Amino acid sequence: MSVKNLIVGQSGGPTAVINSSLYGVVSEGFNHPEEIGHVYGMINGIEGFLNGTVLDFQEALPGEKLSYLKHTPGAYLGSCRYKLPESLEDPVYPELFKKFEEMNIGWFFYIGGNDSMDTVSKLSRYAEKIGSDIRVIGEPKTIDNDLVHTDHTPGFGSAAKYVASTVREITLDANVYEKKSVTIVEIMGRHAGWLTAAAALARKYTGDNPLLIYLPETAFDQEAFLAKVEAAFEKNCNVIVCVSEGIHDADGTFICEYDNSVGTDSFGHKMLAGCGKYLENLVRNRLGVKARSVELNVSQRCSASMLSATDRDEAVAAGVFGVKAALSGVTGKMVSFIRTEDENGSYKMECGLEDVNLICNEEKTVPLEWISEDGSDVTDEFISYARPLIQGIADVPMGADGLPAFVYRK
Amino acid sequence: MSVKNLIVGQSGGPTAVINSSLYGVVSEGFNHPEEIGHVYGMINGIEGFLNGTVLDFQEALPGEKLSYLKHTPGAYLGSCRYKLPESLEDPVYPELFKKFEEMNIGWFFYIGGNDSMDTVSKLSRYAEKIGSDIRVIGEPKTIDNDLVHTDHTPGFGSAAKYVASTVREITLDANVYEKKSVTIVEIMGRHAGWLTAAAALARKYTGDNPLLIYLPETAFDQEAFLAKVEAAFEKNCNVIVCVSEGIHDADGTFICEYDNSVGTDSFGHKMLAGCGKYLENLVRNRLGVKARSVELNVSQRCSASMLSATDRDEAVAAGVFGVKAALSGVTGKMVSFIRTEDENGSYKMECGLEDVNLICNEEKTVPLEWISEDGSDVTDEFISYARPLIQGIADVPMGADGLPAFVYRK
Repeated sequence: MSVKNLIVGQSGGPTAVINSSLYGVVSEGFNHPEEIGHVYGMINGIEGFLNGTVLDFQEALPGEKLSYLKHTPGAYLGSCRYKLPESLEDPVYPELFKKFEEMNIGWFFYIGGNDSMDTVSKLSRYAEKIGSDIRVIGEPKTIDNDLVHTDHTPGFGSAAKYVASTVREITLDANVYEKKSVTIVEIMGRHAGWLTAAAALARKYTGDNPLLIYLPETAFDQEAFLAKVEAAFEKNCNVIVCVSEGIHDADGTFICEYDNSVGTDSFGHKMLAGCGKYLENLVRNRLGVKARSVELNVSQRCSASMLSATDRDEAVAAGVFGVKAALSGVTGKMVSFIRTEDENGSYKMECGLEDVNLICNEEKTVPLEWISEDGSDVTDEFISYARPLIQGIADVPMGADGLPAFVYRK
Repeated sequence: MSVKNLIVGQSGGPTAVINSSLYGVVSEGFNHPEEIGHVYGMINGIEGFLNGTVLDFQEALPGEKLSYLKHTPGAYLGSCRYKLPESLEDPVYPELFKKFEEMNIGWFFYIGGNDSMDTVSKLSRYAEKIGSDIRVIGEPKTIDNDLVHTDHTPGFGSAAKYVASTVREITLDANVYEKKSVTIVEIMGRHAGWLTAAAALARKYTGDNPLLIYLPETAFDQEAFLAKVEAAFEKNCNVIVCVSEGIHDADGTFICEYDNSVGTDSFGHKMLAGCGKYLENLVRNRLGVKARSVELNVSQRCSASMLSATDRDEAVAAGVFGVKAALSGVTGKMVSFIRTEDENGSYKMECGLEDVNLICNEEKTVPLEWISEDGSDVTDEFISYARPLIQGIADVPMGADGLPAFVYRK
């Protein structure tokens, strides 16, 4: 068997462990010198590759530096949001495969979400069409946890741990005053509420905050919400409400759209306030209580401060598994996670392989049976599902500057 | 000498280490059974004390639990924003001192910022007036670092570490795409820019993001700002700008007020968007580039994820020092921090005592000579000042639930 080179790229939004998957692919690539020559990284995904921006990992991250990927958030290689043309007759395909041939690429890895799996699908189908023996493998990645045919996705566990610990801290912060207050926490998730549901993990005891949790899987009724807040004051004078950015009413109107009709900036453009800001104003005006809102924002996907050791280790394992699968001849598959149990009945995860064509452009939402009937909370089934994924904390080395030591391209 | 009881309270906004100071006071209180009997905590500050809500630390946090205060953010005892009357003739003073007498209080500790030092000032002056031998000591606390007559304040170091590490992560997040973008990070600080200045610590190398930093100490000019952003694109296509919430123009108008004239919610109330949101819109509309804003919000003061070990240890030391000072007869003072050097020329901090009357209601801002001439950055002098304060990371134990294990009152 002749030695071929491996290339790996990252695509879509970053996560805390997208570089852990990268570490898995690259380090396992180095383990097979009889089959794999250079391990290349495409800078800014397939779009950057088309523009010829590639690095060689032996030069870019020599020695121990490579292991820093395991705690560095954000996409080390940079990312893109580039969709390959639907038609495999498009000239971009022969252009790409010519480049692969010039670089002697035999193994292609793409780390991303459902849009990125679309790229894996198209490249593997084109390879089959022209009879290329290049192996094309997808590595899952998304804080949204919305990929089908996998128990969960790398990136979700750390984002969930970040959300839960931050909501726990916001609860401590809110509890310092003994005066009625409502804090709205707006969490990422346009269509799938997995990450918002993770706020339930923050509870220290039954009946603790967050007292209300709203996901985009169900319709949001503003009047019912206000009644729920009023009722929640009987449990705690400081009420924490967690909402997905994508909550909408029964007509499908996003809650964040309600204020746009009247709010415009100095240029006459609509001001896009989030649903958290809108609900903060709603609560203050209708209930006459102190209200504030907190948008967790990009830290949900780029903070290494609550890196789940479980998530990190699984992300590395997915990378390693994908390389081994490619070496055994697999192509057109995404590495998936299968939940099993160890001999003690504890959580255990195994990697599997799923047809990437069944995964791309699909979205998995939170099952309705894991959401309480009135849509204001999640059930214990969700807690049991999510709790193992946030276990363990990854040690992030601190540099002499007193801050986390990351690796980066300048 | 007869045994008297000690009482301690917390006041104002919480910080990551306000409970570390509490730990210092309480643990040192336990060390002197020949002089100090019970160690009480007032729940919700002096206001709660007036309402009779008090706990006994031997019962509330027995054994090892007490040490959990050292990594628990938020005010364990709860807080208040209650200002004692200016006139010492007010009947609240005899009422308070009657309660002190009933509880056999000999030592009174109050942990807070400049408003809280006002309470310490009034109580110590009233004690002197009536010839009470109660010892009244202030323990400094504020993320704002705006207390006079102290090198810095407990709480600032951890907040600064949180800001710097979060801005570093936001930079990694922004760098994944190779398309012009501006990220505005809004940081706490209405009048003093210490915490925003700490964003400069995030830079990994000279010329790294954040490329622009604006404090409330200087006037903010919107046109000059836009020109600076344009120029910054020559260094990095992803520009991170850090601004204090309190930035204002030369006329004293807060930048966040600019949009309020047009933005109203469904109830006709002005929508209070922060200056970050306003500048995001300004950049998008005037420069035509991708823009987003991130408000770091309450996590700056309540996150334990970037607890500076230096800050925590100093907060504990301040608590211990205050108790020792009170036992030696000191009253009407606030514990201060004095920066010295060890034999190697490295940073060293010693505790001192300052007249609380000179501290209360005063505010220390960032010296103008530590701000660049055009007001868009801080100097190396600031970096040298702040860097030692963020050194070391405190280990926060994780519970079986996979999240930081805190102590709390239900």
